[in-house]
Amino acid sequence: MTSHPPIRRGPKPNPNLRSELVQMGLRVMHSGGYTATGVQSLVEGVGIPKGTFYRHFPSKEAFAGEVLNAYFERNKAALQALIDNAEIAPLTRLEMFFDKLIDAFRSIGFARGCLLGNFTAETADHSESIREHLSEQFNAWSAFFDRCILEAQKQGYISKQYSSSLLGRFLLNSWEGALLRMRVEKTDAAIIEFKEIIFKKLLL
Amino acid sequence: MTSHPPIRRGPKPNPNLRSELVQMGLRVMHSGGYTATGVQSLVEGVGIPKGTFYRHFPSKEAFAGEVLNAYFERNKAALQALIDNAEIAPLTRLEMFFDKLIDAFRSIGFARGCLLGNFTAETADHSESIREHLSEQFNAWSAFFDRCILEAQKQGYISKQYSSSLLGRFLLNSWEGALLRMRVEKTDAAIIEFKEIIFKKLLL
Repeated sequence: MTSHPPIRRGPKPNPNLRSELVQMGLRVMHSGGYTATGVQSLVEGVGIPKGTFYRHFPSKEAFAGEVLNAYFERNKAALQALIDNAEIAPLTRLEMFFDKLIDAFRSIGFARGCLLGNFTAETADHSESIREHLSEQFNAWSAFFDRCILEAQKQGYISKQYSSSLLGRFLLNSWEGALLRMRVEKTDAAIIEFKEIIFKKLLL
Repeated sequence: MTSHPPIRRGPKPNPNLRSELVQMGLRVMHSGGYTATGVQSLVEGVGIPKGTFYRHFPSKEAFAGEVLNAYFERNKAALQALIDNAEIAPLTRLEMFFDKLIDAFRSIGFARGCLLGNFTAETADHSESIREHLSEQFNAWSAFFDRCILEAQKQGYISKQYSSSLLGRFLLNSWEGALLRMRVEKTDAAIIEFKEIIFKKLLL
């Protein structure tokens, strides 16, 4: 018997396919929503059969979990670098973080908002697996804020009346609500007001 | 010629059909979302052909506008009575309003959240008519809060550092965000924290 390489049928497998699907899902689901995004439209966008999608992801819900991970990963490094920057006063770091986001929303016409909030509105009552995933991610984001606030408390910039953890949660939740109002009004009023109240009235 | 009443074909028209459709849409869209609710499932639920739906509502978007009106109307009378009750101190009225909502969310397992927030997440970037409708409704809700806060300011309970209108907007927006976190966590933590921060730290 002579040995031959196995005969391949069809196009060469794409080693980046999984990541391409997730990045595409992130784009499409962030702008169009979870329910409105069909697996069919995703596989057509990448040019693969539906079966290939399901070889990578057992379900649309599981895929949504990967999309949420990618969303967090995309933002984490920059956020971490900013939050860790001990050369800047802790509350200034937080303000800079929101200023960057406000600029980003201005540049995209106050659309999309936060993927976590959007997925929550659509799926939290219907998918236990996405809900748990969202809960972890909300906690991870809050923890960034918590950390800056704790530093600010230790350095005496803010009162210790409330725990940094509670304030960090409140900050994120209020931001999520401000983003909804922003999307409805298509102006920066709600996110500017958020910053004003949080940094000039709450975090004292 | 003898006069005969015109011959009717098909079932007797239902004078409440329009309102029944809207009430059903409110239930179904509040629990399942805007995108996930098809006109087909609504007409099947009421037992009418699709054409009849479109004789009442030119589009699903126009229908969503009526659903938002019905949501506001359902809550308005009780809210107005509470907000107008001059026998109770203005901030206490506001607290009572949120306490009632918190109880209501406890009784339904922290599901659904606010229809305005949900519709915003799903439609604000995609339907100009729903977006405008939402913007008006957000303003109408904020105005209730604004009014209590203005009274509290006039009576010297809270500082006038920020306008009652800005505070009323911030209150509603923060509440919307707290509801998202509540739906993700399926506990009352976020809405209790909201009340704590708003009434013990912000509205002073």
